[in-house]
Amino acid sequence: MKKIEALKSYFEDYLESQTFPDDPEHLYDSMRYILSLGGKRLRPIAVLLVADAFNKLDDNALHAALAVEHFHNFSLIHDDIMDASNLRRGKPTVHKKYDTNTAILSGDGLLIKAYESLNRIEHNKTEILNLFNKTSIEVCEGQQMDMNFESRDDVTIDEYINMIKLKTAVLIGCAFQLGGLVGNVSTENLLRLYQVGMNLGIAFQIMDDYLDAYSTQTGKKIGGDIIQNKKTALYLTALDRASEKQRKELRHWYGADEFDEEKKVQSVLEIFKANKVDQAVHSIAQIYYQEAQKNFDELVIPETGRARIQEFFDLLKNRKF
Amino acid sequence: MKKIEALKSYFEDYLESQTFPDDPEHLYDSMRYILSLGGKRLRPIAVLLVADAFNKLDDNALHAALAVEHFHNFSLIHDDIMDASNLRRGKPTVHKKYDTNTAILSGDGLLIKAYESLNRIEHNKTEILNLFNKTSIEVCEGQQMDMNFESRDDVTIDEYINMIKLKTAVLIGCAFQLGGLVGNVSTENLLRLYQVGMNLGIAFQIMDDYLDAYSTQTGKKIGGDIIQNKKTALYLTALDRASEKQRKELRHWYGADEFDEEKKVQSVLEIFKANKVDQAVHSIAQIYYQEAQKNFDELVIPETGRARIQEFFDLLKNRKF
Repeated sequence: MKKIEALKSYFEDYLESQTFPDDPEHLYDSMRYILSLGGKRLRPIAVLLVADAFNKLDDNALHAALAVEHFHNFSLIHDDIMDASNLRRGKPTVHKKYDTNTAILSGDGLLIKAYESLNRIEHNKTEILNLFNKTSIEVCEGQQMDMNFESRDDVTIDEYINMIKLKTAVLIGCAFQLGGLVGNVSTENLLRLYQVGMNLGIAFQIMDDYLDAYSTQTGKKIGGDIIQNKKTALYLTALDRASEKQRKELRHWYGADEFDEEKKVQSVLEIFKANKVDQAVHSIAQIYYQEAQKNFDELVIPETGRARIQEFFDLLKNRKF
Repeated sequence: MKKIEALKSYFEDYLESQTFPDDPEHLYDSMRYILSLGGKRLRPIAVLLVADAFNKLDDNALHAALAVEHFHNFSLIHDDIMDASNLRRGKPTVHKKYDTNTAILSGDGLLIKAYESLNRIEHNKTEILNLFNKTSIEVCEGQQMDMNFESRDDVTIDEYINMIKLKTAVLIGCAFQLGGLVGNVSTENLLRLYQVGMNLGIAFQIMDDYLDAYSTQTGKKIGGDIIQNKKTALYLTALDRASEKQRKELRHWYGADEFDEEKKVQSVLEIFKANKVDQAVHSIAQIYYQEAQKNFDELVIPETGRARIQEFFDLLKNRKF
């Protein structure tokens, strides 16, 4: 835990030291704003933890960590526009605080800044950029699939997992592999690192869906995804398992324009309960955690490093919020 | 001329050979759509002409040319959203043909594809990426300045030139220098190439403003910029030179919500004429053309290559549309 917190501080100090120009004001203010909202910084921590595990916690690792964080924030800004979200980490989203045009441009700016940071890395540059480019376009593909799903009512859980794999998990796989690339590890280890991160990412997102409905510790209202009609793993599993009558009720709630929020959440949760959706979805997440653990166990890695990454792993696995 | 046309075909054949996946449909369809709208392909032609002049018209030159064209189209898509433009090259803009979300994402996709293409270049990679990153963020800065200018009524012609330098000219400077980087030229030549492109780009944009009001050969209605209240070099020069009464009239026309288009264009053109705005703006463009020519004359370059680039240069300088 201490190491993870130390790496978070180490990263955030570096992040703060990388200032943007003052002008043009809106462009850089909005970029500073999104980065200042904090967050868990999981992706840069993953880069640094892996690089550190191979004794390569140097400037190259910081450049890679910053690139991943910049990219992540680029995707948050643009996704928030597309999803018409008003809040991000309890604060106004960039397009709400500024406007949509500024948000489009500040997202673009952060994507470019990510590449700027990658270009400071001194070795394995072609491999690093190949990985980053592949990941970036996949994240766009995932976002497009997510948008397409909104207007479809026949999305399967397999399609959903493929979507979150692209939209969320590949960037975590990328973060783990970037740590390996700056750490100069073997090709076998690079492949395993990617698998660790990607499976962890899928499990993480599925648990995110789960916790939204079942955790009282998220600091958010229970059932936020239900209120927003999000087609999460819970909803898709419920649709798959429900009786004709329940399916009709679910579709009614997810199609309603006006509703009593509490009543909606309660009704939907009852259908989830009747179909043991919580257990089913929890099990899916566990399968991906186990897969990630298996990949991790196959890594050839110094013991101190292994223990620290295992800690990070367990932290994610056991989170209640 | 033959060489320039041949390089355009050469580039467009390559562009067509670089296909995108079929799925997700909207993402890649919209990327294909913008690229299929054609255009002069000035930027990739500049890359190829310069590389060819130094006898390096190889795959690396094609990768650099494609990156510049992808980047240019990324910026067109996002700018068209921000400027709420309905038409691009006589066809619906991406956000009109698809929707804003798809347009945001397909812009992102093309920016990433630009980097993918750059990463295929085999040498000078760090320099190439440094140039490209610097240019990209400057283009964003230029776009932000352009948006800021909309709500200001005290923009000077110097500020305007600085804005178009960032928004438009640096990418042309970048295209020229990329040709030099794949051509492995000396540092002195690299600097000159950048200056040639950048000054040419400024002149080009100012002539664009000029031709909009004074050319009957653009295939577009005369005074399109006037109808759209664009604060071009013509408008800013007029404001600077006009009498108090004319200034008031100009501001009236540029602030009016409803108006007779023909009457507006005629009235504004009269104020331009009374203040010899056409000559003044034409002269500014000539100054930048001369500057570009001076930089070009200082280039150390094989004679055949020099003659071909000079032809390209003259083509741009003498264009009537």
